[in-house]
Amino acid sequence: MNATKIFLAEKDMPRQWYNLAADLPNPPLPPLGPDGNPVSPEMLAPVFPMNLIEQEVSTQRWIDIPDEVNGILKLWRPSPLYRARRLEKALGTPARIYYKNEGVSPAGSHKPNTAVPQAWYNKQFGIEKLTTETGAGQWGSALAFACALVGLECKVFMVRISFDQKPFRRLMMETWGGTCIPSPSDQTQAGRAVLAEMPDTPGSLGIAISEAVEAAVADQSGKTRYTLGSVLNHVMLHQTVIGQEAKKQLKLAGEKGADVIIGCAGGGSNFAGLAFPFVADKIAGADIEIYPVEPTSCPTMTRAPFAYDHGDTAGMTPLLPMHSLGHAFVPAPIHAGGLRYHGMAPLVSQAIVEGLLTPKAYNQTTCYAAAIQWARTEGFISAPETSHAIAAVIEEANKAKEEGKEKVILFNWSGHGLMDLLGYQKYLAGDLVDIPLSDEDLARGIAVMKDLPKPEIRKTGKW
Amino acid sequence: MNATKIFLAEKDMPRQWYNLAADLPNPPLPPLGPDGNPVSPEMLAPVFPMNLIEQEVSTQRWIDIPDEVNGILKLWRPSPLYRARRLEKALGTPARIYYKNEGVSPAGSHKPNTAVPQAWYNKQFGIEKLTTETGAGQWGSALAFACALVGLECKVFMVRISFDQKPFRRLMMETWGGTCIPSPSDQTQAGRAVLAEMPDTPGSLGIAISEAVEAAVADQSGKTRYTLGSVLNHVMLHQTVIGQEAKKQLKLAGEKGADVIIGCAGGGSNFAGLAFPFVADKIAGADIEIYPVEPTSCPTMTRAPFAYDHGDTAGMTPLLPMHSLGHAFVPAPIHAGGLRYHGMAPLVSQAIVEGLLTPKAYNQTTCYAAAIQWARTEGFISAPETSHAIAAVIEEANKAKEEGKEKVILFNWSGHGLMDLLGYQKYLAGDLVDIPLSDEDLARGIAVMKDLPKPEIRKTGKW
Repeated sequence: MNATKIFLAEKDMPRQWYNLAADLPNPPLPPLGPDGNPVSPEMLAPVFPMNLIEQEVSTQRWIDIPDEVNGILKLWRPSPLYRARRLEKALGTPARIYYKNEGVSPAGSHKPNTAVPQAWYNKQFGIEKLTTETGAGQWGSALAFACALVGLECKVFMVRISFDQKPFRRLMMETWGGTCIPSPSDQTQAGRAVLAEMPDTPGSLGIAISEAVEAAVADQSGKTRYTLGSVLNHVMLHQTVIGQEAKKQLKLAGEKGADVIIGCAGGGSNFAGLAFPFVADKIAGADIEIYPVEPTSCPTMTRAPFAYDHGDTAGMTPLLPMHSLGHAFVPAPIHAGGLRYHGMAPLVSQAIVEGLLTPKAYNQTTCYAAAIQWARTEGFISAPETSHAIAAVIEEANKAKEEGKEKVILFNWSGHGLMDLLGYQKYLAGDLVDIPLSDEDLARGIAVMKDLPKPEIRKTGKW
Repeated sequence: MNATKIFLAEKDMPRQWYNLAADLPNPPLPPLGPDGNPVSPEMLAPVFPMNLIEQEVSTQRWIDIPDEVNGILKLWRPSPLYRARRLEKALGTPARIYYKNEGVSPAGSHKPNTAVPQAWYNKQFGIEKLTTETGAGQWGSALAFACALVGLECKVFMVRISFDQKPFRRLMMETWGGTCIPSPSDQTQAGRAVLAEMPDTPGSLGIAISEAVEAAVADQSGKTRYTLGSVLNHVMLHQTVIGQEAKKQLKLAGEKGADVIIGCAGGGSNFAGLAFPFVADKIAGADIEIYPVEPTSCPTMTRAPFAYDHGDTAGMTPLLPMHSLGHAFVPAPIHAGGLRYHGMAPLVSQAIVEGLLTPKAYNQTTCYAAAIQWARTEGFISAPETSHAIAAVIEEANKAKEEGKEKVILFNWSGHGLMDLLGYQKYLAGDLVDIPLSDEDLARGIAVMKDLPKPEIRKTGKW
């Protein structure tokens, strides 16, 4: 078998999502309210529909995927599994490198895997309109796409500087019928308050989250809800179709399994989507190395503590148990906008604490060098976020070469970079610099959390 | 079988290209030199490598695809055949609508199908560097991709106004290691002459062709050649993998064949790639309607004569037998830049004269309305060129509904529109107007050809 792509038939699509919460050695810790007490499902009801809240708090191992959701996912799923034969050859590695191509979705990334079920469950619950925030625009465009297909209104608060710099992302949302406005806006109290104080602010994801939540909760009709594109448990859940498909495709390729799993991690969802079904195998005894990869500019997993922290800058959201650089932390302006988040998904964070994952961090010039080598061997132009996974893959393949060891490396090619080419321009011109986080800025970020409750996870596993 | 996508295994990829020249009722007419005599293969040798010239003049029905070429094409081929179930439902049509998704290639369109073999044959011939021109950037980026994978230098002359307006296209080429310079440039005599006269010119495809040809021919080492992304016979040839795959996939979908074939046509290559294998069936007696679709602003097939005309504005290329609006014709600035060409591929043109094809023309607002309906039902955002095919598909599907007639419509979704969203913005804002060609401008364009030789094709078929 010398195939480049391994396709899976639509009839072999996963029928259930996999929930890692069922298998982690320790039960997941609950989110906490401002009073330090666990947040109940009812308290989240103004923000999310109850059917998604049930998924958020579920510890059931398998959750059925509705047929109608799979019907829409079929527009691009199962995504092809590729064997990166040309990169292998260029590196002269004995490793066999496989990747899931999540760039084939209409929005060009893995984000629609959760945007579609989120829109669908909201529609089922009687919701008519969704709000969300977006930074670089990947999530906002994915949600606009999903709302168009499901039949919901969609309003996206886009960080103003991205809104101005990336007009094409807004145009994607509008093509799908969504509304995209720069944040801070004059449409919410939160936005107006910021504008009054800083009329020329470039905006931030924290402000945009506040606006999107307020716009959902403030709708007196009760027909509007808020959505999030990463971090939360139900988002990780929806992405697990990636890893489940990959397992079947590796078998079709004649492999017994994978030795190394790699994905870039900002909020954690594309990584979790590929990795969690393999984490289950590792918990059951399989010998697998699993690497979530982040930028040195925003080293949530490699340098920040596991703590209770807010998901947003303003501290409006519940406290989540996660690796966090502190909710006030502002990462350096690297091009991988999707990896510039101060926290990390609670399920990913706990799996790190449990010893199941081995996080890695890379400088952005290393990642762009990897992305250029990728484009000139494998052909596809990668998103700046995805380039972090490629950097780790190349390192691992070179290690296999040094050790003269065959191994199977599987990673998530989470999206194409066709809308985000400016970083490539700067890198090729030699104008890109590395901005690793300094110890001082790390300490300053973490200090914000000093009076918050501390989560405790007793490491029980042997990994 | 209720699949959305029908995949074909890599082992079932076409092993040969189909050459329509072997089956057209009349033998194709030769290109003519400035003296009115046929151009010999030797005369083309400074411009193209002999192995591609042999394909250009071949009348052999099947031509083998080298394994190494197929090896690179496997990065995205076979492209999936989709059933557009959501559009069918939205239209309430009894027609079954299928499309080939050529947007899955690394460059996002069908162009790499010929860029890869062209680069490969040049490399085989000992060539080290390729030159070409590009308007909107689709072809230039496809060739840069192919050169990166094959191992050739690539230099693209990009029409200056597009170079300035579409920096991302240039960045794609540079990411793949290509060089992209605005045309007219100071690197060729042709460019310098234009700049001396019109320093502020926005450039044109005609000027860019002159520069790219000169840059190839002027290289004294003999290691540089020129490439073209459409119009020529060998380009049509390379694209026929699309139609061959589609035939096999329709069978897998349980269809006996297609009743209607549709593709947009600028130079003709994506249309020909899908349609020519079906044109062969039509010549052999099959009952198939085949529609090439163009803009009303550049109605080469629907309103221009079949004539001998130059391929470029300056009149430097041989005379080709084709439907032409005249080599000096400047089409209105519609957003579908790839359909703004004064001529049409000789093989497509002759098939029209023979009565095998039924050209159609649409206004751009009709096409954008179709593309919006497509994005909000089928999910994918179409290139402005591709939207012309969609407009024809919707018309045909509505006709089937009126007639209460089941039929199979197959069309070529030639590429995504993620790099070309400004037209969507204008359409959604209500700022887009239709600019059909006036009778006066048509007459003025055609008048340029009045002293050129006249091609004669005796219609022999019964279609």
